[in-house]
Amino acid sequence: MAREGTMLERFKVPAEDVVRVPEGSLRATVASIFERMGVAPEVAAEGADVLVMTDLRGVETHGVSNMMRVYVRQYNEGVINPQPNWHIVRETPGTATIDADRGLGILLGRQAMNIAMEKAQRVGIGVVTMFNSGHLGAVGHFALLAAQRDMVGMCMTAGGASVLPTFAAEGRLGANPISIAAPAKSEPPLLFDVATSAMAINKIRLAARTGVKLLPGWVATPEGVPIMEEIPAPEQGPNMVLPLGSTRELGSHKGYGLGLTVEIMSALLAGALPSMLDSTNGFKNYFAAYDIAAFTDVAQFKENMDKMLQKLRTTRPAPGHDRVLYPGLLEYEEEGKRRAKGIPLHKEVVQWFDSIAAELSVPRLKTM
Amino acid sequence: MAREGTMLERFKVPAEDVVRVPEGSLRATVASIFERMGVAPEVAAEGADVLVMTDLRGVETHGVSNMMRVYVRQYNEGVINPQPNWHIVRETPGTATIDADRGLGILLGRQAMNIAMEKAQRVGIGVVTMFNSGHLGAVGHFALLAAQRDMVGMCMTAGGASVLPTFAAEGRLGANPISIAAPAKSEPPLLFDVATSAMAINKIRLAARTGVKLLPGWVATPEGVPIMEEIPAPEQGPNMVLPLGSTRELGSHKGYGLGLTVEIMSALLAGALPSMLDSTNGFKNYFAAYDIAAFTDVAQFKENMDKMLQKLRTTRPAPGHDRVLYPGLLEYEEEGKRRAKGIPLHKEVVQWFDSIAAELSVPRLKTM
Repeated sequence: MAREGTMLERFKVPAEDVVRVPEGSLRATVASIFERMGVAPEVAAEGADVLVMTDLRGVETHGVSNMMRVYVRQYNEGVINPQPNWHIVRETPGTATIDADRGLGILLGRQAMNIAMEKAQRVGIGVVTMFNSGHLGAVGHFALLAAQRDMVGMCMTAGGASVLPTFAAEGRLGANPISIAAPAKSEPPLLFDVATSAMAINKIRLAARTGVKLLPGWVATPEGVPIMEEIPAPEQGPNMVLPLGSTRELGSHKGYGLGLTVEIMSALLAGALPSMLDSTNGFKNYFAAYDIAAFTDVAQFKENMDKMLQKLRTTRPAPGHDRVLYPGLLEYEEEGKRRAKGIPLHKEVVQWFDSIAAELSVPRLKTM
Repeated sequence: MAREGTMLERFKVPAEDVVRVPEGSLRATVASIFERMGVAPEVAAEGADVLVMTDLRGVETHGVSNMMRVYVRQYNEGVINPQPNWHIVRETPGTATIDADRGLGILLGRQAMNIAMEKAQRVGIGVVTMFNSGHLGAVGHFALLAAQRDMVGMCMTAGGASVLPTFAAEGRLGANPISIAAPAKSEPPLLFDVATSAMAINKIRLAARTGVKLLPGWVATPEGVPIMEEIPAPEQGPNMVLPLGSTRELGSHKGYGLGLTVEIMSALLAGALPSMLDSTNGFKNYFAAYDIAAFTDVAQFKENMDKMLQKLRTTRPAPGHDRVLYPGLLEYEEEGKRRAKGIPLHKEVVQWFDSIAAELSVPRLKTM
């Protein structure tokens, strides 16, 4: 088993290719680009916040590097709508279903989670589903909004059909990530955010750009046979990604079922078809907020969280490992470092920003 | 990769050791045993229903074979309470927290899910947490109760501390299963029910009894190093079970985080400590019901489920596999077979039933 951080190392930008960019400059440039795409200024600032926070936390697959150029292309092609007339199509005291009108998910997610939190304050729990949206970005970002308000937050998103069911030779599910966030008293909050596929599909793009290999158990042959050795990342991305668990023996039926759970909660519960049946209907999203005070004493909950998280991170490590982590701890530490030292981008990403900044007449990125 | 059903085959009772028992007889004997333990007749019948339905679905790890003798011992030792004064300690329109007063979970689960469903009918979504209970059994049983009433059901349970966090040499989490059930129109319902550990811990008992080996990636050495080869099942059960994903490279941080999610939703949200901090506080449980009509049109939802489930089970299989399944399909088929042909029990289990029947003066099992 590899040392702690190996996977992160594998996907880090090589030192010689790093350009460090201050948070504020990245925020300003990204917001300006969204405005040029036709997005209202306050919404553009929200989109910049989602992406920059994601990069600050070190979740580079879902930050500006992979995603910004995709969003610009989708606006230019009319795939997503810069001024969506998003609206609630069905509602009860604890639930709402939103038609996103092809608005970009990262720009609408906070509003959806706000609705879930308002409902949670009134009836203890709020659940919002949203269909017909663009990409939602790092789902953990929205779960964390609830944790910042003494709630437990959950967020999931369904879209795509490149992940194989167990025993299958054809992709049927998206990477379909699940996130949960919960506040503690003194410890950094728990923030869990993972794809239900064996790997985040974005990692393949990142791997192709950085030249790293894919690990055993991540993808299958075109016939659906799991590849249990290292292979180079395919240039165009595979359409044969394995579910979490990789093989039936290791538990791929669990990853497959979790991916299906996300389809049901995000797509079917929003009245939408999963991507396996409609490849044109974008992303389907799920937001839930649990008001902790509705269930138990908030101060006690946070103290119990502290005790549990401390117990976990002081657990005796296995040979070859420095420490045991809990979900969100590394990201919290990384956020502190990157706020101080800047966000490391690949020089090729900065070049793209320079060219789009010139094209759209928006501020260029500052570097550190 | 093994053929479909290999894992089930591995844990099936060997043909020469099988005794087939009719559903009705098993139900009557199990209910009578619960009554002898001091449980009220209508509650005893509920417990028999949970266990027998679990055996009918072929989920033998959580049916009578492994569990009935454990429950009898726990009643005899006073660990669980046959007549609990279970009660709601906090409540809002969408939520409730229940103190189970050491009642056996399988006997209280339906009532907890009923409360969640009543809340869902009023405010769209209902969530119930329950602390201080005995074993909850197969969590999918309770999720399915919601699916039978045009709702999406979820159920989870936390208890135990034998599953390792990623990189750890000490167990911290229980097997912490997650279940979801959703109705379709003509297809058997989706019923997903899996441990967030690499294997259900009960399977180790079953493996020791049936003499089968444990697969690679299921357990670790006492130092916390994942064992990636087949080994015999330890007699006393290991205290070093790996999370789903087995190694960091294959995604053990995902299984670990899912297990923690179950701790937060089931234990901490109920105001209780996880087992890693209090090994004496039994099981902590989570029940959620989503009223489909609160989100979208019920008939449309069920038609979409049919389309999705048909698409999945008609997906082209990988070489060596007959077909692609969806969660709950095999269990549905097995239920039909076992209702007709009886429930296959290991002869040693039937011997135990015979001896306890004599001891307690309850009806012996009939055999087919």
